[in-house]
Amino acid sequence: LSHASDVSVPTIKYYLREGLLPAGEPTAANQARYDETHLHRLRLIRVLRTVADLPIATIGQILAAVDDQEQPLHHVLGVAHAALNPPPAPEDQLLIEAQREVDAWLGQLGWRVSAQAPARGALAHALASLRQLGREHSPQALDIYAEAADRVAAWELDRLAATDTREEQVENVVVGTVLYEAVLTALRRLAQEHHSTMRFDRKQP
Amino acid sequence: LSHASDVSVPTIKYYLREGLLPAGEPTAANQARYDETHLHRLRLIRVLRTVADLPIATIGQILAAVDDQEQPLHHVLGVAHAALNPPPAPEDQLLIEAQREVDAWLGQLGWRVSAQAPARGALAHALASLRQLGREHSPQALDIYAEAADRVAAWELDRLAATDTREEQVENVVVGTVLYEAVLTALRRLAQEHHSTMRFDRKQP
Repeated sequence: LSHASDVSVPTIKYYLREGLLPAGEPTAANQARYDETHLHRLRLIRVLRTVADLPIATIGQILAAVDDQEQPLHHVLGVAHAALNPPPAPEDQLLIEAQREVDAWLGQLGWRVSAQAPARGALAHALASLRQLGREHSPQALDIYAEAADRVAAWELDRLAATDTREEQVENVVVGTVLYEAVLTALRRLAQEHHSTMRFDRKQP
Repeated sequence: LSHASDVSVPTIKYYLREGLLPAGEPTAANQARYDETHLHRLRLIRVLRTVADLPIATIGQILAAVDDQEQPLHHVLGVAHAALNPPPAPEDQLLIEAQREVDAWLGQLGWRVSAQAPARGALAHALASLRQLGREHSPQALDIYAEAADRVAAWELDRLAATDTREEQVENVVVGTVLYEAVLTALRRLAQEHHSTMRFDRKQP
């Protein structure tokens, strides 16, 4: 398993002890056989560790939701989002105001998002930080980002609904949230560089 | 300064020692006066620490590029992107293939992005991870995310070009890259929840 995955034996043993990885089929006193499902689960753990930088305990919570056949897909999405979100910032007046503003704006948009959605706090924190730096966002700014986010998410959920099995669906929710966030972030930076080159780089023809 | 910023005195002293924060105007043997520019710089450091989770040395590099009046804006964007990007993953065959694919695809798109842009590696890493998990991206997927990223970045660079002073511009580059990335990421999650509610949540009317 270590050879196939490029993950060290001590790390694999640690994941086994923590219950992230199911035990292999025992073949001798000190040996076990691992199959494709173990390799796949190990790769999933590595993505959550290295790309999303999640702590082991949080990965355990996500995998438990993935493995629990009773959990509806909508709930798994909530668990993944809660896990990915930074802990709430200390309460201050700017943040409370920003939170109120986010709630009102989401209401106007008509987005059906639970009052406890952790991304509300993440958005409010970013807006409060901008305000504190004297870089108040324009009302238009939020709409521009929201429109881009809405297009992407509508396409993602369409694709998810077209996926056959629950197993595939929940893994797509977890992997897609993390890895396509990395894709979107990288593409935004590449697009920024492209538009910056076009406008500001005098060296270019 | 500590009172105005809610940052502890030892942390402020640490930033002064590391050269992130310019010294105040001495008023007595053990006292100095700090003004609005110190408070603003301190808030900028806190955003880079807490939102972008950057190490002190990296923040130092970004601030040096911000403060160097000779540096063109396009260069500051490059410094900020390099700082924000995770170190390159260990080379393996999947990653090398993904890198080649990213380069070819960006060439087709016609985006003018330097061959060393760190976001190329970040994108390749995400695509290689998807492939390793058996979740090959569809060619259409990249186009969907690229279109969203392109709209957002075009609007961002338009707004930047309309900003008056170089000082405002470079700070917008640094703050905008970090904080609007957080805005976009939070909005994608909120939009996902909205579309998930619409499709999968039977409890809703």
